[in-house]
Amino acid sequence: MSRYPILDRIDSLEDFKKLKDSELPALAAQIRLYMIENVAKCGGHLASNLGAVELTIAMHRAFSSPKDKIIFDVGHQSYTHKILTGRREAFCKLRQENGISGFPKREESEHDPFNTGHASTAISAALGMARAKYLLGEDGVAVAVVGDGALTGGLAFEGLNDAGQADVPLVVILNDNEMSISPNVGALHRMLVNMRSSEWYVRLKRFFVRILDTGIIGRWLSRHMENFKNRIKSFLMPKRLFEDMGFLYLGPIDGHDIAQLTRMFRRAKELHVPVIVHCVTQKGKGYTFSERNPEKFHGVAPFSIDTGDIEGTLKKSNSSVFGEAMVALAQKDDRIVAVSAAMSIGTGLTEFAGRFPDRFFDVGIAEEHALTMAAGMAASGLKPVVAIYSTFLQRGYDQILHDICLQNLPVVLAVDRAGLVGDDGETHQGIYDAAFLSAMPNITVYSPATQQELTHMLTLALSRNEPSAVRYPRGSLMQAVSTQAVAKGEWEVLAPISEQTVIATGAMVSVALPVARKLGTGLVNARTIQPLDERTLGEIRRVAKRVVVMEENIDCLGLRLSALLSPIPVVRMNVSCAPILQASVNHQRQTCGLTAEALEAYLTEELS
Amino acid sequence: MSRYPILDRIDSLEDFKKLKDSELPALAAQIRLYMIENVAKCGGHLASNLGAVELTIAMHRAFSSPKDKIIFDVGHQSYTHKILTGRREAFCKLRQENGISGFPKREESEHDPFNTGHASTAISAALGMARAKYLLGEDGVAVAVVGDGALTGGLAFEGLNDAGQADVPLVVILNDNEMSISPNVGALHRMLVNMRSSEWYVRLKRFFVRILDTGIIGRWLSRHMENFKNRIKSFLMPKRLFEDMGFLYLGPIDGHDIAQLTRMFRRAKELHVPVIVHCVTQKGKGYTFSERNPEKFHGVAPFSIDTGDIEGTLKKSNSSVFGEAMVALAQKDDRIVAVSAAMSIGTGLTEFAGRFPDRFFDVGIAEEHALTMAAGMAASGLKPVVAIYSTFLQRGYDQILHDICLQNLPVVLAVDRAGLVGDDGETHQGIYDAAFLSAMPNITVYSPATQQELTHMLTLALSRNEPSAVRYPRGSLMQAVSTQAVAKGEWEVLAPISEQTVIATGAMVSVALPVARKLGTGLVNARTIQPLDERTLGEIRRVAKRVVVMEENIDCLGLRLSALLSPIPVVRMNVSCAPILQASVNHQRQTCGLTAEALEAYLTEELS
Repeated sequence: MSRYPILDRIDSLEDFKKLKDSELPALAAQIRLYMIENVAKCGGHLASNLGAVELTIAMHRAFSSPKDKIIFDVGHQSYTHKILTGRREAFCKLRQENGISGFPKREESEHDPFNTGHASTAISAALGMARAKYLLGEDGVAVAVVGDGALTGGLAFEGLNDAGQADVPLVVILNDNEMSISPNVGALHRMLVNMRSSEWYVRLKRFFVRILDTGIIGRWLSRHMENFKNRIKSFLMPKRLFEDMGFLYLGPIDGHDIAQLTRMFRRAKELHVPVIVHCVTQKGKGYTFSERNPEKFHGVAPFSIDTGDIEGTLKKSNSSVFGEAMVALAQKDDRIVAVSAAMSIGTGLTEFAGRFPDRFFDVGIAEEHALTMAAGMAASGLKPVVAIYSTFLQRGYDQILHDICLQNLPVVLAVDRAGLVGDDGETHQGIYDAAFLSAMPNITVYSPATQQELTHMLTLALSRNEPSAVRYPRGSLMQAVSTQAVAKGEWEVLAPISEQTVIATGAMVSVALPVARKLGTGLVNARTIQPLDERTLGEIRRVAKRVVVMEENIDCLGLRLSALLSPIPVVRMNVSCAPILQASVNHQRQTCGLTAEALEAYLTEELS
Repeated sequence: MSRYPILDRIDSLEDFKKLKDSELPALAAQIRLYMIENVAKCGGHLASNLGAVELTIAMHRAFSSPKDKIIFDVGHQSYTHKILTGRREAFCKLRQENGISGFPKREESEHDPFNTGHASTAISAALGMARAKYLLGEDGVAVAVVGDGALTGGLAFEGLNDAGQADVPLVVILNDNEMSISPNVGALHRMLVNMRSSEWYVRLKRFFVRILDTGIIGRWLSRHMENFKNRIKSFLMPKRLFEDMGFLYLGPIDGHDIAQLTRMFRRAKELHVPVIVHCVTQKGKGYTFSERNPEKFHGVAPFSIDTGDIEGTLKKSNSSVFGEAMVALAQKDDRIVAVSAAMSIGTGLTEFAGRFPDRFFDVGIAEEHALTMAAGMAASGLKPVVAIYSTFLQRGYDQILHDICLQNLPVVLAVDRAGLVGDDGETHQGIYDAAFLSAMPNITVYSPATQQELTHMLTLALSRNEPSAVRYPRGSLMQAVSTQAVAKGEWEVLAPISEQTVIATGAMVSVALPVARKLGTGLVNARTIQPLDERTLGEIRRVAKRVVVMEENIDCLGLRLSALLSPIPVVRMNVSCAPILQASVNHQRQTCGLTAEALEAYLTEELS
C-alpha cells in the first residue's frame, strides 16, 4: 500500500478541496514525509517548509486561489503550496534542470501570482494586487505570507506603512518561527519573542491586563513595580505595533493547528480591511534532525534521512577560507569588524562571531542598513568588512554608491556567491555585481582565481584606505598555481602573452588554464576587474592578434576590453543577462558557453 | 550698520559658543535673513532650512562638534550648521562651482562627519559611528537629524530596529515639519500628525490618561466609548512606537524654542542610551511666501525676495510634458495608474493626482515599495507608471531587477532628471541608470531627444506588455526636428550615415545636431539604448570609418557600440564615473567634454 494514501489522490487544488477536514492532519503528515524524501534526494529548503505545512493547508481551505492571490515572501517555503496545486508529481524534480523551481513561478502555475526569491517583497506586491482588484472591480483578496525574518527588511516596513492606511482588503500572514536564516535580531524580533504564543503567556497577559486595569491595585503596581509592568507591556507590543500601523491584528495562534488557522484565515478574509494574522510555527517540525538544527536544514544539499548527514565535498569552501582569514586578520588588528545581513553562517563568519562578539554585527535581513552603518563605522576609524551574497548585495546598490563609494570610505565588501549559483535559479544568480560595482567611483574590485588569492586580496583590501570588493563564487576556487604576490591593479600572466591570448577572471581562470596549456595560448588572470592593468594591456596590444575574455557574470570586463583593445578583435565569453533558470552550476555554465570545450573551439577555429 | 551685527562676529564654532543665551533669538533672525538673501541669489533649499534654524542653534549649544558627530539626514537642511561652523562667508557661493555644496561634505569641514544627499541614511550612519566610538574607546555622542518624511524610508526603519537594541548612546532628533518634499503619507505620518505638539493636545492627553487609569470610570469609558478611546490612544502612538523600538522618547517639543530645545538635547546626550527627541517645526518659518507655500520653496531657483516670484524659463519642462501626456493617456485607458515616491510635484504629476485621485499613489520616500507595489499592480492587470528621479531610482535597483525585469512585467519607469543635474552635485547626478537598466533582462530603455519623442515613447511603452524605462533630463529637451514615428528599437537617422558618423542619445542629440549640419557628418539619434538598432548598425558598419558616441551618462552605449562595431574605431564621449561636483549643468557638461566644441574638435581632427 502507498505511504501517501491521501496525498496520492491530490492532482489538483480541486481534489484537495474535496477532502474532509478530518483527513487533513493525516495529509499534513504525508506531505512532510514526501518533502523529506524528495529534499533528501534533490536538496532544497527543508526546515522552513516543514514549519509551514499546516499553515499552507489552512490557507487553501480558507482562500480560493487563483482568485485570491497568495504570495509567499522569499518563496522557499512554498513546497506544500506547490504539492497541493497540481505539482505533486513534478515535485520529484525539484530545483532540477527542466524540473520545477524551488520558488513560486508565474510560468509554472496560475496559483503562483508573483515570483519571489529575495525577502520582504510580498506585502508591497500584495498591496499592488489589492489596489488592482479594487480599481478593476475584481473579487478576491491578496494574501502575503511573510516570515518574521523578512519583517526586518525596510521594504516590508515601507509596505506595511502604506498598506496600513490603504482602504483595501489585504491579509498578511506572519509566519513567526523565531528565525530567518540566522536567528534574527533587532527590536522587532525582541517584541515577537515576547509574544510567542505559549498559552501560559496569553493567560498571564490577560490576567495582568485585568489587574492593571483595576484602579487601586493597578496604580500600586504602576508605582512599585515599574519594571514588572514593562515586562507585561512587552507582551502586548507586536499587537500594538501592527495596530499602530493601521492593521487589524489577529493572534498569536498555533501555526500547526489546522482548524484554528482555517478559522482565523476565514475571519481575516471576511474583514475586508488590512489584517495581520500572527501564526507561531516551529521551523523544521516533524523531522528530528531539522527540529534540532533548523539552520543546518535551511537550504540543504542531498542528505541521509536516517542520519541527517548531508552530502558534502571534501574541498574547503570559499566561505570557509574567507571566515578563517577574517579571524586571523582580526587577531592582528582591533579595528577590523564584520557585518552580516542574516547570513553569518552562509558567509563563513560563525567562528569570527564567537571569537569577537563585540566586533560582529548581524543586522538581520537589512542589507541597506548593513552597508550604510558600515560606512559610518569606516568614517569613524573602524575597518568594516560586510559579507553579503552577490544577489543580495544588489539590494544595497544606492548605499554602496552614495554612502561608500562617493565618500571614498574604506569599507570592504566580501561578495560571496558571485557568479552562477545553480539550483536556486535566476532570482539568485550573482552575475550583476561585477558590472554595477565597477561602474562606481573609487572602488577596487578584486576577483580571486584561487583560494590563496582570496585571502591575499582580503588582506590587501583591508590595508588600503579605500572602498573595495572581493568577489568569489559559490563552492571552491582552485588552489594557487603560482606564487606571484597580489598587488592592486596588477594582473598575473599565467602563460606568456601570445598572438592568441585569453584573459580570464575569477573561477574562469581554472577553466581556461588547461586549455591554454594544451594549445599554448597566452593566459592572463585578471585579478582586478577595476582598475584594469594598463601595463599588461600594453603588452597585449603589442603582441596579441586576437583576445578571448572569459568571465562568469554579465558582459563587463569583455565590453571594456573590447573598447580598450580595439582594433584587436575581442571574443567575449560571459553570462547573458537573460534569466538563467535552475540547474547545476556546471549545466548553467554549459548553457552560457562558459566551458573549456567552448573556449577551445573559439581558439582552434581561429588557429585553423 | 550691518544688518547682521551678531552673525558678523561668527567666523567659527568657537565664536558661536561665546555668545550669550540672550543673543540667540536675534542670531536666529539674522541667520534667516542671511539665508533668504543668499538663496534668493543662488537658489537652493529654503523652506527646510528656515524651519531648522533654532533646532541647529540648540544642537550646537548642547553638543560639541566635531567630537560629537552631527549627521543631517538628506542634508539639504544643513545651511544654519554651515553658517555656524566657519562657512558664513563661503555661504555666498552656495551650490556654485568652486563654492560650498548645498549638502554636508566631509571635504568641506571637520564638522560634517558624513556626506548625505539621499534620504533615510543618517540613523544607520550614526549607529555605525556610535559603535565605532564604543569599540575605539572614544568620547562623544552620534546625532542623527531626521525629517518625518525620511522616516518613511525602509532604511530608516532598519536603522531604528537595529539601534533600538544596541547598547550605545545615540541621539535621533526628529525634525517633524509634517512634510517631506510632498506632504507625506502612510500610517507613520498619521501617527505623527496626531502627536503634533499643541499644548492643548498634550494637556488633554494627560487628562484622559489619568481618567482611563481610574478604575471604574476607565472601564466604563472602555466599554461605552471604544471609538473615543481609540482617538485618545492615537495621541500616544509615536511615543509608543519609538519606545517599542527600544528608544527613550522625549517630546514633542516646540522646535523653535531654543532654550527648551537646548535643555532637551543636553538631557538626551546625558542619557547614554538610544534616545529620540521629537521636535515640531514649521517649514519655511520666518518668510511669508515660504510659510504659505513651503513646497514651492523646497528646492528653489533664484527668486525675488519682495514678491516671492521665482526666476523661471519660458520653456516647458520635460516633467510638465510627461505630466500632460499622463493625463491624456489616462483619460483613454482606465488601467493606467501613476506611482510617485514623494515627488509628485517634481515629476509633474500634480494634475494627474487631481484628476485621477483613485489612480494616483504617492507612497512617500519609499522607492523600493513604489517599484514592487507597481510590479504587483502590473501582475494584476494595471498599467503602472512609476515616476522617479534617476538618482533615487538607484535605491530600487533590486526591485527593478528582481520584481519587474526578471518577471517581465509591464511597469513603465518614468526616469526624470536623467543626466547631469547641476547644483545638487555628485550625490544627485542621474548618470548611472542608463548602464544599470540596460544590463537587466527584458527591459526596453527609451531615451527621447525631443519633447515630442518623450510623449510618443511613453505612449509606446504603455502599449507594450513589457518592462520599460523612458529617461529624460532635467529642464527642457528640444522640439522635434523630424516627424519620423517612434518604434521600439528603431533609431532615427538625422543626417545620412557617412564616413564619420555621430551616434547621440537623449539631450546630446541637440548638442550634436548643429555640429553635424556644419561639418556634413552623419548623425544618428539613438532613441533606445536597449535594444540597439541592428539595421542602422549594419549600415554604419558598411559606410562608417569612424564613429563618435555621445551620451550624458557613464560609459554605456559607447562601450557596447565599441564592441559591436569593432574594428571601426569608436570615440566615446560620456560622463566619467568620478564624482561630478556642483556647478551649472552647462559647466558640468564642459567638465565632462560633452559640448559642441569638443565634438567638433574630435571630428575635424580626423578630417584634417
